[in-house]
Order: sequence, then structure tokens, then C-alpha cells
Amino acid sequence: MGPGPVNADPRVLRAMSAQLVGQYDPSMTAYMNETMELYRGVFRTRNAATLLVDGTSRAGIEAAIVSLVEPGDRVLVPIFGRFGHLLAEIAGRAGADVHTIETEWGEVFAPERIEAAMREVRPKLLAVVHGDTSTTVAQPLDELAAICAEHGALFYTDVTASLGGNEFEMDAWGLDAATAGLQKCLGGPSGSAPISLSPAAVERIESRKSIEAGIRSAGDAVRADPIRSNYFDLGMILDYWGEKRLNHHTEATSMLYGARECARLLLDEGMDQAIDRHRVNGAAMAAGAAAMGLELFGDQAHRMHNVVGVAIPDGVDGERVRGALLEDFAIEIGTSFGPLHGRIWRIGTMGFNARRDAVLTTLAALEQVLRAEGHPVTAGAGVGAARDAYADAAGAGA
Amino acid sequence: MGPGPVNADPRVLRAMSAQLVGQYDPSMTAYMNETMELYRGVFRTRNAATLLVDGTSRAGIEAAIVSLVEPGDRVLVPIFGRFGHLLAEIAGRAGADVHTIETEWGEVFAPERIEAAMREVRPKLLAVVHGDTSTTVAQPLDELAAICAEHGALFYTDVTASLGGNEFEMDAWGLDAATAGLQKCLGGPSGSAPISLSPAAVERIESRKSIEAGIRSAGDAVRADPIRSNYFDLGMILDYWGEKRLNHHTEATSMLYGARECARLLLDEGMDQAIDRHRVNGAAMAAGAAAMGLELFGDQAHRMHNVVGVAIPDGVDGERVRGALLEDFAIEIGTSFGPLHGRIWRIGTMGFNARRDAVLTTLAALEQVLRAEGHPVTAGAGVGAARDAYADAAGAGA
Repeated sequence: MGPGPVNADPRVLRAMSAQLVGQYDPSMTAYMNETMELYRGVFRTRNAATLLVDGTSRAGIEAAIVSLVEPGDRVLVPIFGRFGHLLAEIAGRAGADVHTIETEWGEVFAPERIEAAMREVRPKLLAVVHGDTSTTVAQPLDELAAICAEHGALFYTDVTASLGGNEFEMDAWGLDAATAGLQKCLGGPSGSAPISLSPAAVERIESRKSIEAGIRSAGDAVRADPIRSNYFDLGMILDYWGEKRLNHHTEATSMLYGARECARLLLDEGMDQAIDRHRVNGAAMAAGAAAMGLELFGDQAHRMHNVVGVAIPDGVDGERVRGALLEDFAIEIGTSFGPLHGRIWRIGTMGFNARRDAVLTTLAALEQVLRAEGHPVTAGAGVGAARDAYADAAGAGA
Repeated sequence: MGPGPVNADPRVLRAMSAQLVGQYDPSMTAYMNETMELYRGVFRTRNAATLLVDGTSRAGIEAAIVSLVEPGDRVLVPIFGRFGHLLAEIAGRAGADVHTIETEWGEVFAPERIEAAMREVRPKLLAVVHGDTSTTVAQPLDELAAICAEHGALFYTDVTASLGGNEFEMDAWGLDAATAGLQKCLGGPSGSAPISLSPAAVERIESRKSIEAGIRSAGDAVRADPIRSNYFDLGMILDYWGEKRLNHHTEATSMLYGARECARLLLDEGMDQAIDRHRVNGAAMAAGAAAMGLELFGDQAHRMHNVVGVAIPDGVDGERVRGALLEDFAIEIGTSFGPLHGRIWRIGTMGFNARRDAVLTTLAALEQVLRAEGHPVTAGAGVGAARDAYADAAGAGA
């Protein structure tokens, strides 16, 4: 019950134990094409360029940034948590001229503040995290595409922590690039990074191929400055997944099976239903924690559905509580870092764990552990409030 | 029965279906440490810095090169097949001043020729593929470390295609860096890249950290030229796998389970025994193909144990033969590319497929398909010769 990675859906793990086929076997081509179509449904996009990067969610981020950004390009990164810092660092290493704005952890940006920075910086790329588990809040994205369009910037977001459990609309919100991972609301293991690119993003990537032509054909001295990575060159990866089927890496077949099953699980349930399940379970967890007298962290109007920040009460040793939950109840909740180190726990309700029994069991266990630590908790308050939250949600849905 | 990826050992696939644990769960730390120790056995090294890069074998190559090479550094790449071109390209994208020497596909380099190039180029890194499945031959490495030491160069090799099925001695041969993948002789799926780094390699990586200190602490403008990748920064990855356990990527837990099981399989069997199994099965396949009147490709004295190149006879349509083998017998053999396109098939005997029944079934099926294509084959000649080869090997071993 941490902020991710979390335990995977058993259906995903079973899918990953299927035998491999050769990477140019006709059935493998069919699996890849099917996976692309499934992720169009998950990202809610018609982008042809929707595929997997073979690596963790961080690999997807780096592939997007290093492929979209040429050395010297200005990039704007609004930072409201740890993963904003990561986007800035990766863009810096890709040679970008990185500009950042920051807000306090637990808050998000008003669109006006991002717009003002866009006017000042005039970046080629706006790179912003959607939901940042380090602070448990999600940045609204729906007004930013218009600002990017006005300034001729591409618009990239990292939806690793939010996709599948929070509203996200790649096309309706006007994103040019989005990258994810399996280990949060998608119910899978880390190790595959779904990515989607708009036609404008693909065009920018394709326009860089000319400077690479020399490299691709030459076995000898190479001194041009093309995409600074072979592994993350989305132009080449697109040619591998696309109709050309040009060899690049050897697709990580077991991870592809897993990613495919993650998308099937979400689409079988329905994206709206899956997001609503995360909303309801997250709300129940938050209500239960609050009813135990715990203070919720951050801007609750922008709280992610799949993780809640809970202030560690004065006099309570946060790490002892986490240790007791793990040892006595086999339940993991998250610590925190950076400015929140030692101040909050982060409790997740995502993927396979966005379930009523998981939420109520966690609240019941937390009550026992807090009492054992000498912190007063009204017996049954947390579970009772969560039950009420489920009843309210069922009533609202009926 | 292609040149890889091949079907995985069922034990590896079962291991990958195990449930996940949190990445800082004490048991996860134990799994990571155990995996490091297992791969020391596989690489035959005492290098503390022996771990996994989360991505395909190509990710391991790029991590090694981008972490060891600073922009402008001279790198020498002897090219004897497709993957040598890949090393040169990746080094070029990392900003290296890349120098190459080439030999005909199917041949390897005499150490004297590499030594002469080292004297001329004076590189900081010698990067050479060990076994290159594109040509089915393996470059002898055991005399190159002394040459590197004399010129103060680090010595890196890509053992993706050879490790576990061909003699390889990280420490005894004096390697500074080696990277692999699971999808060849290790019997697993693509998606995890075992890597080992000598103390000298680690020292070079650590020495680059100072210029990165600014980046790591800063959320704002970054213009230094440190390791050009966050995902492949082996300094950070070492701090994640090492005692500091600093957060970097989220470990791809299912792939780690798979990689761990691959190493256990090899070490349970014994490295010498596993290599011998590949040698015997590769020799049987080669003997069987030759007995069917097929010409073997390349320098047979340096043939890899796990893949044999077979010339496509005049008048035979190589792709029709591959298609019939796949459709009628569910057996995949490899095509070829570059200068060998349309000239040879590549038949693998590796990992789970380095088995007597797999070899004999493939030869029996190939006989049927060749005959159906109108190519004359003496009935039973291939299987008979392979059986003799097994008997000879058993006699020699007894």
C-alpha cells in the first residue's frame, strides 16, 4: 500500500510467464500491433506512435526528452515535487537550456504562472509531471496545451504515477508526448514504459533523422550531434514498431506480455470505471485516515486518487510505524523524502490494491499500530469512516 | 533455433511470475545482493560492481559506453560484424572520437592488428564484441588486456551473445567492463542486461561525479557536460545497487527474478558444464549440417558454440525454407543481413535449446524441407552425423 511500485495483478504475472516467440515471428508482430492499439485506449489518443520503451518509467522519460530536445533547446520545467527535478536533470543531461519554476511541495501551479514563464522563456518544450507521488498532488494539464500552441512549444507530461487511476486525456488535452510505467495504477511490474507521441512530436523527431543519416550508414568516425542516444532514439524505435519493422533492440517480450495484460485489464474494466475505482478507494483511505485524527497533507483539491499523504503525528516515530505495519501485517506504506522527509507517510491505493478489502485492512492495521505506539485513536473510527465513504460513493453512483 | 532471442527456460518464466515486493523491502535488498553474487559467478569475476541494467542488452552496452566515455575521448572499435558497428555508433552518439578497424564478416582479428591500431589511435577505451551472432564467430580476447594496459586504455566487451555458452573469463582475461543480456545462452527473455565493472572502470566513473554534483543538487539551469544520460549513469546505478541504496530507477523486479533464475540455472549446472553443453550441441549441429552437404560459413576455428552459419545452397530459396520450417515444424532459424543477406542461415543451439532433442529434431526437419524444395540430401545423413558427434563428445568426456 505504498506509493508504488505495488504488488502486481496476478493476471499480469501469469501473462508474463507465457513462452517467448521470435521477434519477427508473425504472432510477435501481431502482439506488438495489438499492444499499440490497447495503449491508444489507455492514453485516450489516436496517435499512431503509441508503443513501449524497454526500460522502467524513467527510460520512457529519457527517451521522450532526448528525442524531442536538441542540445541548446530551451525547455521549461515547472517543478512541484521530486519528479519535476528529475525531468529538469534529464533535460540538462540531454544538452537542453533548462529553465524551471518551482512551487511548494503539496501545491500545484495556476495556469497563469506557467503561462507567464512560457512568455519569458519561450521554450521549445514544456515538460511537466502530471501526478507526483512525492507530494501526492496532480498538476491540472487541460489548460496548458493552448498556452504551448500559442508559443509554438511541444507539450510533454510524465503520467507514470497517474495513468489509469486519474483522469487523463492525451488528445482532448492536447498533449504531444506522454510517458508512463506499469508499476502504479496499471497493476504491473516496473520495466516497460508506454509512450505516446502526437504527429507534431513525431515530425520533430523525424526532422532530426537527416543529421543522423551519416551515423547510421557509417561504421567509422562520427562527430555529428544527432539524438544523443541509440537506445532512446525514438525515430529508430518508431521504425522498429512501425510498418518498416527495422531491427533496433530485441523487444523485451515478457515485459510486452505484461504491458499488454495491464492495458487489457484497464480496458476490460473500462477506463472511466478504473479511474472511478481509484477515486473511490483513495477517498475512502483519506476519509479513514482523517477520522483517525491524522492530518492529510497537501492541496486536497488536487490530491491524486491513488496516493494520500498523511502527516506523522507529533511524538510518533514514523519509521517504527512503517516497520510494525510491514512486520506484523505484511503491509508496506511509503516514507517520504526531500522537504517532506520525516513529516508524512504516503499511503497508496492503486492498481491491484485499489480495493475495498485492501483499504479497510490497512486502516485496521494502522489503528492497531498507532495504539501500540501510544497514539490515541478512537476504536473503529478509520474503518467506519472509510465504510461510510464507500456507501456515499455507491449512493452517488446509483 | 535462431541466433537469439530464443525460447526461454520454463524455470525462468515461472520465476518471473512470482509476486513483487517493494523496492526497499529487506527481501528485495537480499534478492539484489544475491543476484550480484550470482553474476560474479557467471562473469567469473570478483568485481563488486556486478549488477543489472534495466533494459535490453543494448541498454547495457549504452550504459557502459556512455558512463566510461567522455565527449572527445578516443575510442577504438574493431568491427567484424554488425554489433561492432553498433558499438561504434553508440560511442559516436556519446560524443566519443571513434576510430574503427574492420575485417571481413566471418573472420576475426589477429591481436597484432588490434595492437597496431591501439598504438596509432591511443584510445581511452577499446570496445570489442566477443561473439557476434551476425557472423557466428567470436573474437579471442585473452591477449588484448595486456595491450590495453600498455596503452592505458580500459577494455570493454559485449558478451551478450556468448556468455554462458562460450569460454569467458572476466578477471583472468583482464576485462574492465562487460555487458550481456538474458536472451541467448542464459535462457531468459530480453529485457535485463547483466554488467560487470572492474575497479578501474568504477574509478573512471566515480571521477566523473564531481562535475555532476551541480546537476544532482540543482533543480535549475544545467549546462555542464557530465554523463549524458541519467538512466544509464552507472555512477548513480552503482549507488542504487550498492550499500548506499540511493533511489534511482524503480528496479524491474520481474526481470530481476528472471535474471536471477538464469544465473542460478547456469551455476547449478556449473559454468564449465554449461559451456561444454553448448560446445557439444553446436558441434553436433555443425556436423549434421555439413553431412547434409551444406557449407559452413566463417572461420570455423573461431565459430561460436551457440550459432552456426550455413550457406544457402545455390537454387534454394532461403526464405521459403525458413517459412516451411516455421509453418510445418514450428522451428525458427535465422536469416542474415548486411553483406551476408541472402547468403547464409544462422542456426542457434543456445540456452534452453542447447539440447540433443532440439538439435536432432531441427536437422530432421531441415532434411525434409530441403528435399521438398528439390535439394538433394542423403536420407538420415544430418541426424546420423550429429549422433556421431554426440558419441564422440561422450567418449572424449568419459
